[in-house]
Amino acid sequence: MAAVSEARRVLVYGGKGALGSKCVDFFKSKNWWVASIDIAENASASANVVVKLSDSFTEQSDQVSVGVEQILDGQKVDAILCVAGGWAGGSAKAKSFYKSCDQMWKQSVWTSAISSHLASKHLKEGGLLTLAGAKAGLSETPGMVAYGMAKAAVHQLCQSLGSEKSGLPVNSSAVAILPVTLDTPANRASMPDADFTSWTPLDFIAETFFNWTTGKSRPKSGSLVQVITENGKTELVPAHL
Amino acid sequence: MAAVSEARRVLVYGGKGALGSKCVDFFKSKNWWVASIDIAENASASANVVVKLSDSFTEQSDQVSVGVEQILDGQKVDAILCVAGGWAGGSAKAKSFYKSCDQMWKQSVWTSAISSHLASKHLKEGGLLTLAGAKAGLSETPGMVAYGMAKAAVHQLCQSLGSEKSGLPVNSSAVAILPVTLDTPANRASMPDADFTSWTPLDFIAETFFNWTTGKSRPKSGSLVQVITENGKTELVPAHL
Repeated sequence: MAAVSEARRVLVYGGKGALGSKCVDFFKSKNWWVASIDIAENASASANVVVKLSDSFTEQSDQVSVGVEQILDGQKVDAILCVAGGWAGGSAKAKSFYKSCDQMWKQSVWTSAISSHLASKHLKEGGLLTLAGAKAGLSETPGMVAYGMAKAAVHQLCQSLGSEKSGLPVNSSAVAILPVTLDTPANRASMPDADFTSWTPLDFIAETFFNWTTGKSRPKSGSLVQVITENGKTELVPAHL
Repeated sequence: MAAVSEARRVLVYGGKGALGSKCVDFFKSKNWWVASIDIAENASASANVVVKLSDSFTEQSDQVSVGVEQILDGQKVDAILCVAGGWAGGSAKAKSFYKSCDQMWKQSVWTSAISSHLASKHLKEGGLLTLAGAKAGLSETPGMVAYGMAKAAVHQLCQSLGSEKSGLPVNSSAVAILPVTLDTPANRASMPDADFTSWTPLDFIAETFFNWTTGKSRPKSGSLVQVITENGKTELVPAHL
């Protein structure tokens, strides 16, 4: 009876964004308890941790960690899905370079690092942590220097977490998804003439996360899984470094 | 006559640290104009930019950039050597994890990003930017998660800078050194029983930078050059990713 009545729980970091909202809705539709961590509340979530903007990583990470402890109240979660992130273009010479670095670290690296520590404390044994990488970050990115640098950090973090004694609970997994372009309303608005059949639908990602969380086709811990969409068909292709 | 009288100039980011001080002294001994950028002044340098500690990257990067513009007064430099950095151990579960992340980003990633933008503005054509990577960051680092993540970001940054349209001046180069352990007084104090014959002497690095700056054996731009010391003998081994 315990197994049947036990609530299944997931934290979505970036749960108010396009992909995050989709993940919240998907897991809610399966009757899971879903908490959103984001700078704005997601009214569809079972619980929210609203992140205060700060230039201090230790301040923000402590605030989020305390918030998560409060909403979990000692319960463990089956998965932590970090889908926070953003994009910024520009070379190292761009006037916006410093601002882009600042944004990319805050949006991608800070959120990934916080999710990793949260996973070490609150994930169930056998649980899943997903991180948001990018296929572009597997090699040089001279036209989006700050973005590539931040994503490369996330990739190496995922590999560390997939190793022995990384601090994650027994049998749990860390997996990064490395998309090219996600089919979000914002991307459609900013690139109206693009070929949408090469963009990855958000539903695909949400369903993939659900499958991995429930043990179906979950990749090996530490995997960097490229998400390749061509002609409207999406494939998951592990990167080999 | 212009070529003879033209001053040769180098910026050393982290010029008050163990390796930085060695670089300052080495280039000074060759009669170069040497500026140090660090949180404390290096009295041996020709000029100093003293970095104010801040939790805000944009604030610190702007402060350093303004300081560099003031001391250069429109002159270009032959090289920018970023030798700032630090080390922090610990898994993702460590109580100190957030603090370690914060330190590693500030010490390695902030300094590398600022050096890159400075290079785009102040490096001569054909100049050299060096960054401080780490051999460990080429693969997973579960026992020093924050450190590996920061160094992986520096590596990818170097690769971006070595590519077309990265923003660096024509024919200039970005090269990262990836040491294992440097033979510094601090490392000797903290690891007194280690095998020092596998540690890299600081003189070797300073001389290597001087050679590369003056065009001798300079690696291809974007290179990640491992610095391997065995039995007191040091070799430079490019990493192939």
